[in-house]
Amino acid sequence: MVFYLLSMFGVAVFAASGALAAGRKNFDLFGVIVIAIVTAVGGGTLRDLLLDRYPIFWVRDPAHLTVILVAAACTLAYVRFRKPPLAALAVADALGLALFTISGAQVAEQKELPALTVVVMGTITGSAGGVLRDVLSGEVPLLLRQTDLYATAAIVGVAAYLVLQTLGFGHEPASFVGMGVVAGLRFAAIRWKLRLPVFRVSEEKSKSE
Amino acid sequence: MVFYLLSMFGVAVFAASGALAAGRKNFDLFGVIVIAIVTAVGGGTLRDLLLDRYPIFWVRDPAHLTVILVAAACTLAYVRFRKPPLAALAVADALGLALFTISGAQVAEQKELPALTVVVMGTITGSAGGVLRDVLSGEVPLLLRQTDLYATAAIVGVAAYLVLQTLGFGHEPASFVGMGVVAGLRFAAIRWKLRLPVFRVSEEKSKSE
Amino acid sequence: MVFYLLSMFGVAVFAASGALAAGRKNFDLFGVIVIAIVTAVGGGTLRDLLLDRYPIFWVRDPAHLTVILVAAACTLAYVRFRKPPLAALAVADALGLALFTISGAQVAEQKELPALTVVVMGTITGSAGGVLRDVLSGEVPLLLRQTDLYATAAIVGVAAYLVLQTLGFGHEPASFVGMGVVAGLRFAAIRWKLRLPVFRVSEEKSKSE
Repeated sequence: MVFYLLSMFGVAVFAASGALAAGRKNFDLFGVIVIAIVTAVGGGTLRDLLLDRYPIFWVRDPAHLTVILVAAACTLAYVRFRKPPLAALAVADALGLALFTISGAQVAEQKELPALTVVVMGTITGSAGGVLRDVLSGEVPLLLRQTDLYATAAIVGVAAYLVLQTLGFGHEPASFVGMGVVAGLRFAAIRWKLRLPVFRVSEEKSKSE
Repeated sequence: MVFYLLSMFGVAVFAASGALAAGRKNFDLFGVIVIAIVTAVGGGTLRDLLLDRYPIFWVRDPAHLTVILVAAACTLAYVRFRKPPLAALAVADALGLALFTISGAQVAEQKELPALTVVVMGTITGSAGGVLRDVLSGEVPLLLRQTDLYATAAIVGVAAYLVLQTLGFGHEPASFVGMGVVAGLRFAAIRWKLRLPVFRVSEEKSKSE
Repeated sequence: MVFYLLSMFGVAVFAASGALAAGRKNFDLFGVIVIAIVTAVGGGTLRDLLLDRYPIFWVRDPAHLTVILVAAACTLAYVRFRKPPLAALAVADALGLALFTISGAQVAEQKELPALTVVVMGTITGSAGGVLRDVLSGEVPLLLRQTDLYATAAIVGVAAYLVLQTLGFGHEPASFVGMGVVAGLRFAAIRWKLRLPVFRVSEEKSKSE
């Protein structure tokens, strides 16, 4: 039950961030709703499709869609009168990422998949919604260019979650530590502008080939 | 049988509109065919994937792919010698949208999904093909920016279809009214340039945050 | 067993080409890995999703992901000190395309799908990874614009594979000839710059409508 409420919280936050992103692109009302939905359920949907996990989590339970519509409407109403609370949203987004990532990893774990796949599924659940949002908005996904350790935080968090369980920790404490690692790394990355190295292939070299 | 023929008509129209769009981007012959296929079957395929509805409608029945290839070839041949009949295509596209949307809603209904999901599935079936076409063409989906009530027509049509059934109307009349609402709204939107409001987040505000 | 090793070889080559493409866009380390994974497994994943073929080929077997990570790391290390071996990569890519395409066609064949669908599934398996790579990189898919007969090679190869079997050839020789046709056409296209005709819709015509 707590988990369900937390999951709704994550959905709402991702929907709000999607609505804000769509607003920046001057999409119309429908576009805002689509981007809000895609951002909020995209990662979990891709995970469910890849793992043959039907019904997909939001298809039978209209609560997810309802929460998304309400969150998008509130976002629209709020930014009509006030500045978007970007700092608060960044914190909420980090919590949503932590929650989605570890819950995605748990789903993959229940299917007894190898550790590497568990990491991939956790990362997909946490971050694919944002990638779809960017692709539909005509942007190169932010995640691939400069992540402030966004997906990296997810990967390290799932790894911590798996390692702790291997060391004999219980399922629940490992989950909470894993979420803490994701959110903590993400906060640290935003605070100190931590980034992964960019990989460059010299254009000159390539052209001279 | 009538339904099957209507569905083929919708596929052909969407394939022609995809081929035209690809032609505008100077794609090669293969690119035109891919975009025609994606536009025509993309929405229904996404619906089938999300609803675990296998085999996907065009996979076992080669008639869909054949109709798409013929429609794309006719489009290529036609525009070689004449102006594309945009007005006729817009009418046909509205009919295709109406048909795909209501048939998508019916599929979701058979699965006894909640009303909100039925609306989403109808809208996806009718409009996701066009979104995929735009993404593959490197465009921000038209649908999200300025829809002339494209997806909105789909949403309102499915809502009408569901409300009528709740009021005791039979399945068939409700379907026809639903399709009429979709096509009618779309015609009206094209005719009088009806649009949804655009949602703006002031860049200044965001930057000053 | 030979087939499995060949398949790993294809995965490695596609991962390397994905890593190189990501490097050209100045993605960060995570972006490079994502693009490498998507390029290598995207086509087969889409095929498996469309054919309801679970578990998806890389989900249960971590060897695919491992090979991709190693191939991407080697590519990163190599181009740090040397020019990317583009000619060698083009050859390897043609072999990967041949292998993926025919193996995709075989999967569709086992499901007793119509010939047209077999061709489509083979082509998707061989080329959809590259399309996803381009979409995520913010590029209009190379494949749709100027293919050097990339997908066309796949289509002709699958057709040859099917025709030979109809003519009474065994499964294995038909497979090898099919792969040879794909790789051979692709080499010829690169060597002599063979291209499909581009389909143009005059903008003037369209605008005057």
